[in-house]
Order: sequence, then C-alpha cells, then structure tokens
Amino acid sequence: MKPFENLTGAEKEALYKSLREEFDRVCGKKLKLNMARGKPGKEQLDLVSGILTALTKPEDCECDGIDARNYGNLSGLPAAKRLFAEILDCKPEQCFMGGSSSLQLMYDLVAKAWTHGLLHSPQPWCREPKVKWLCPAPGYDRHFAVSKSFGMEMIPVPMTPQGPDMDLVEELVKDPTVKGIWCVPKFSNPQGFVYSEQTIARLAGLKPAAPDFTLIWDNAYCVHEVYGEYLPFPDILSLCAEAGNPDMVYEFASTSKITFPGAGISVMAASEANQSYLQSLLTFQIISYNKVNQLRHVRFLKDKAHTLEIMKQHAEVLRPKFDCVLDTLEREIAPLGLASWEKPKGGYFVSVNTLPGLAKRTLELCAQAGVTMTAAGATYPYGKDPADSNIRIAPSYPGLEELAQAIEIFCLCLKLAALEK
Amino acid sequence: MKPFENLTGAEKEALYKSLREEFDRVCGKKLKLNMARGKPGKEQLDLVSGILTALTKPEDCECDGIDARNYGNLSGLPAAKRLFAEILDCKPEQCFMGGSSSLQLMYDLVAKAWTHGLLHSPQPWCREPKVKWLCPAPGYDRHFAVSKSFGMEMIPVPMTPQGPDMDLVEELVKDPTVKGIWCVPKFSNPQGFVYSEQTIARLAGLKPAAPDFTLIWDNAYCVHEVYGEYLPFPDILSLCAEAGNPDMVYEFASTSKITFPGAGISVMAASEANQSYLQSLLTFQIISYNKVNQLRHVRFLKDKAHTLEIMKQHAEVLRPKFDCVLDTLEREIAPLGLASWEKPKGGYFVSVNTLPGLAKRTLELCAQAGVTMTAAGATYPYGKDPADSNIRIAPSYPGLEELAQAIEIFCLCLKLAALEK
Repeated sequence: MKPFENLTGAEKEALYKSLREEFDRVCGKKLKLNMARGKPGKEQLDLVSGILTALTKPEDCECDGIDARNYGNLSGLPAAKRLFAEILDCKPEQCFMGGSSSLQLMYDLVAKAWTHGLLHSPQPWCREPKVKWLCPAPGYDRHFAVSKSFGMEMIPVPMTPQGPDMDLVEELVKDPTVKGIWCVPKFSNPQGFVYSEQTIARLAGLKPAAPDFTLIWDNAYCVHEVYGEYLPFPDILSLCAEAGNPDMVYEFASTSKITFPGAGISVMAASEANQSYLQSLLTFQIISYNKVNQLRHVRFLKDKAHTLEIMKQHAEVLRPKFDCVLDTLEREIAPLGLASWEKPKGGYFVSVNTLPGLAKRTLELCAQAGVTMTAAGATYPYGKDPADSNIRIAPSYPGLEELAQAIEIFCLCLKLAALEK
Repeated sequence: MKPFENLTGAEKEALYKSLREEFDRVCGKKLKLNMARGKPGKEQLDLVSGILTALTKPEDCECDGIDARNYGNLSGLPAAKRLFAEILDCKPEQCFMGGSSSLQLMYDLVAKAWTHGLLHSPQPWCREPKVKWLCPAPGYDRHFAVSKSFGMEMIPVPMTPQGPDMDLVEELVKDPTVKGIWCVPKFSNPQGFVYSEQTIARLAGLKPAAPDFTLIWDNAYCVHEVYGEYLPFPDILSLCAEAGNPDMVYEFASTSKITFPGAGISVMAASEANQSYLQSLLTFQIISYNKVNQLRHVRFLKDKAHTLEIMKQHAEVLRPKFDCVLDTLEREIAPLGLASWEKPKGGYFVSVNTLPGLAKRTLELCAQAGVTMTAAGATYPYGKDPADSNIRIAPSYPGLEELAQAIEIFCLCLKLAALEK
C-alpha cells in the first residue's frame, strides 16, 4: 500500500472502483453495528452481577445506624461518601451522593446557577445578559449539549496532550462573562489525554474575573485504565483551596462504567461551603437520592483497592477491543496517511483525526453500510468541527467479532471518502 | 371533664397546676418521639423485603428486549410505564419514569419552566416579572417550599372537604401571572380530603389566562387507603383533554410509600405533547433514571391488583396507629372543645385544628417534652397559618407504644396551651 497522495490518477480510479464494490457488498449485508456511545458491553455488566445480591434482607439495609430504605439524609449515606472520598482523595463531607447519573448532577448545578446563582454569584445567571463557557475541544458532546441547552455562548479551547491550552484559558477568564469550563482531567473524552500536573496547577490557580467562575471537573474515568497500572491523580479540591480558589471547583464521578450504566450512583465533590450552600437549595428538590442503591455499591465495591480490582476485570474485557480498533487502524490507515489517532491508556474512546474535510463523508458512508457512530462534529461546540476531521470511536459495546467488522468498514469508508476528494 | 370554657378561674388554676406537674415529669424523662413526617415505620419496610431479591441474575435484568442495566431509554422502561399507567388509568406513553423522588420530578418541572419555559410558555418564567401560584391550604409544606424557593408569590386558597375553593380558584386564574396550582387530589396532605367529582371537573375545565397554567396533580396517595376499600379516582389527563386543556396537567406519583421511601421509583404522567417537549429538554439532563430499580418494582409489584394487595398490608400496620391518634384525641380533647380534626380514610396524616392561637404554643411545649412535630404553620404558604390553629400529626413512623405516649403528650400540651391563654 502506498500513501494515497503518491497514487496516480489511474491507480486512484482503480482502487476506488474495487473499494466501492466491496462497499456495495457490505451494504447488501444490512448490518447493524454500533460504535457510537461509550456504553459497556454485556460481558462487562455480567462481571458485576454481585451487586444485584449485595442486599437481600432488611438487616442488610442498615449502615452507620441509618436505615437506607427510609427517608432522610439529603446528601447521601456516609459510607458512600467515604467510598468516593477515598477514590477521589477528598473528604467525605465534601461529597454529595446522587442518583444514577453524574450528568444529572452537572446539569442541575448549571440549572441552580441559572435559577438561584451559585455561592459567589452576584445574581442568578438567568439575569446575566450573557453567559460564556469554555469548551476544550474536541470534548464530550453531552457537556456541550448542556451549555447549548442553557443558551450559553460556547468558546472552543484547543486540547493538547497536556490538557486545554492554558495560555488561552488564562486569557479568556479575564472576561467576567466567562462563567466556567468543562474538564475531563483523566482519559479525556474523546482523546484519552491525561491533564499534566502543570495544567492542573494552572487550572486550580486561575484568576477568573467572574467571582462565580465554575470549574466542572468531570472525573468520569478516574479509575478507568485500559492499559497499564492505575494512574494516580491529585485532589483538585485541595489544589484549588491551596491556590485560593476553594469554591471554584465541582468534581463529578459515577459508577456508570464500574457497575451498571443504567443503575449506578454518582457523586458531586465540592468545598464544604459549596455543599452547605447547594444543599440549602437541594433540600427543596429531593429528600435524598436512592440510598439503598448507594449501600449496594458500598457493599459491592467495598473500597478503592477492591474497586480497582473490579476495574482490572473491566480492562481485561476492554483491552482486546481497543487492540482491535488500534491494530486495524494501524494496518489499514497508517500506511495511507489518511488519519492520525491517539493511543489512550484508558477511558472509553479512540479519537481519530482524518485529513481535513473527510469526517462527515466517512460517517455518512458508515451509516449507509450499517455502522452507527457518533455524528461528525459532535466533539465540538455547536457540532462544528472546523477541520471536519475528528471522529470518536467507541469500541466498548459491540462484541469483538462485530467490532472487528465495524472497524474494517470504518476504514473502508475513510478510504472511499479520501478517494472521492 | 368539662369543656374548658365552662371552668371557673379557680378550677382552671388547679387544673393547670396538675397538668404542669405532669408535663414536668414528662420532660424529666428526656423522651425522643417523632410525629413530624409521613415516614413509613420499619414494620412497613419489612413488608416489602421481596423487592430486594426481585432481580438476582443478569438474565433477570432484561425486559421487553431492553437490558435495564445499560444506558438508554430516557423515559424509562416500558414495563414500568405500563404498571403506572394501569394504576393512574392513563396511557403508558404518557408516563415518564423518574428516580426515587416524585418531589424531584415536580421541582424539575418548575425548574424547566423557569429556565426554558413549558410547552405553551411565551417565555421562560425567569423572564416573567412576577409568577403567582395557587396554594390550597392547609397543604403540603414541601410544595410550598418549592414555590418559595423560586420566589413565586403564593396565594393561599382555602381547602374544603370537597377540595380547593373552586369559586376562588376560577376567579384567581383570570390573572395571567397566576401560573399554576398544587393539588393532592386523593387523601390530601394534611387533611386526607378526597377531591369531589365536581371539584375535579372544574379544575380540569379551568380557563386560565396564562397559556402555560400548570395543574400539578400530586397523586401521592393514589393507592394509600387506611380504612375501607380502594377508592377509584378519575384519570385527570383524560378529563383535562376532554375539557380542552390537554397540556395543562402534570400528574405525579411514586412508590415511596409502597416500597421504600429512600429507594423507590416515581412517575410524571402528562400529555404526549408535553412528554415530547419535556423529553426534548430532559435529554440534556440525564440518560435515564435507574432502570434496574424500575424493573425491580415491575417484578415485585406486578400490576395494580397486586399493588393494592400490598397496600392492604400497609393499611394493617397503619390502621392501629391512626386509631390510636384518633381515639386519644376523642377521649382527651373532644370533651374539652379545644380542637377539631378530620378522620381520614387514607393518606399519612391527621390534621388537627385547635382553637385559634394555640398551635404554635402547643408545639413549643411538645418540643420541650421531647415530641417532634411538623412546625406550626408549615401547612400554610410562607409558614403563616392566619389562625395559628392547624397541626399535622404523622402517626406512621413511631411504634404503637411510642405513638401512644407521643399523642398523650400532645394532648397534654394542647391542654396546657389552652389554659395558658
């Protein structure tokens, strides 16, 4: 195989014809393959079936003198806070335990800012003429969707392998209408980058003009290694406090990719002052999130060490899938010079950058061939990838055989898209 | 015993002295009794332990071809919708399944109105110079707390045994800044009133000036009989639709007092148009509420008939507690003419109206004697009971022996408060 740029016109034509025939054959198979979402596969869910029987009798439902079955304890079970405090390296009293969705906790934080304002807000954000938000890009589409839903002006910030471009971030936060930033510090979505120590220190030490600037620290993949040993991370709450920004950061995590995505628990960690303020509002919204499920997780996950053991089992399932994607890209695409990609150590995605202008067309062809992928552009604010280049591959859900088929088809479509140009 | 009004001054003094001595003795016991919240007792929670083992294996977690453990299905499991649609007599596609709290669903509805507006809102309510809300009173303190938290102007509407004073409601909704009303149609909190057919028809047929007037129909006690047979209720969604108001009503219910208060499931039933609009916003907030817990409930509750069987077992536990409260009031207070009260057929409360000006003082004395009760005034908007008269007694949580002690102390405190006057 030669790089496409070195092919003659006739070679290109012949290649296009043969690939197109293959493509038509694939389309004829009416496949339904999905690499769209970071959704664990059945084998992973079966790994954690023990959580279904973690509590079976009334007496199992008591912990620290609290009957988890009954009303009360707005901020959640102390034992669940201790578990997450150990994982995140913060204090139990800095943890608020949520339901099955950390996205919901993030959305609700923004909603509270909108309707009531945050601890240091001069007024509710709905009264602000404009709210701007920093969006490291490529990034997580659901983050950007929250910002969009509230009508924020999203400002893309380029991602680097060390994290968001901090020179730019430090410049942008001088604007008092810039109210926050989305961050996925470990195994960022989609590239799998791990923020460097220096990036994290600069984020913790930001001097934003907005008194209620909000660092949303979505630690979604905090224990989600795929390759290699567990990678420790610093406690962002302490770092912000030490830098004089104790109330700037809200950290989120969940068990969605540790136990069950549709039935896990979530946490929002924040300074005691933030907790006290937010809980004074949350008390009108809910009596508590599901405490029986919190206790199930405490009994099943036990502690950080045991959680990491479970994550190793997940990694055993995920690794061959990541290998499959990376190996196929290496074999089919690398020699042609059509795209580059990251080799993540963890998280749920492989982020591919095609030559400019190929992403949309590649995914159109994938859809025709029965392979569903996250829409092109989804990793950018407003769905606008300026280079039409970034594609997020989610290898976790399909079985290995299906995945192999899907990624082959993806490579085929990328080649076709390149030849069409 | 003579009615207090017939006592001479000297008789009153002697009685006060002896009651005060008894009160001091009680205070010396340092009791900790609680009749504050409508919280099921341990015996009730133990009744439904079967839900803990409703799902124990991976294959148990599939229903209608959906793996409840994984991401997806924003509006919840179809089987859970079918269960609640049968209970509420509406259509499954009108149901959105929530987490452990219907309060959260109600709060979020108001929050959505605030940040985005509802289906027929000219603009988000945060842009409205004033939002007024009708509050049938006495009513549920947590409803009023939501209104207060959003800075609504709450307008009390007197409750009658047939429901809210509809002449007044029909008059008040002519004001376009009146955006909604809280209703607990069956076994209202706190009086246990059941809205009459006529009241319900008039509510369904309201002609509010606000195009987005919101009837919040909190059917919290829809299957919660304490005395007698199950009382059917009409489907408010159909009634509103027939009256030309298909999108005016949002009905809420939960299993908080059917299975576990801290770990149940909830539902918001509304027109398909409302569902479609709200879900277009909810999709940014959450991927779905806990579907495994939804499926547990489906497997354990089975259907309406079986749910009603379980509710009969709850009633067996609750009835002696209600009897204890009602009998003690009848024996200790009725002859003295110090208060009147409702004899509810269901729900979680006994609502007492003391002679004017006695409620606060009675509860002060209760607190001194170690009996915690809902604060005086809590059943009114802004906590302001104009007559200082209404007291909500929640008999469900204490054991029968403790409850007997608590209600005796309550009667003692009421007598003291009356004699102090």
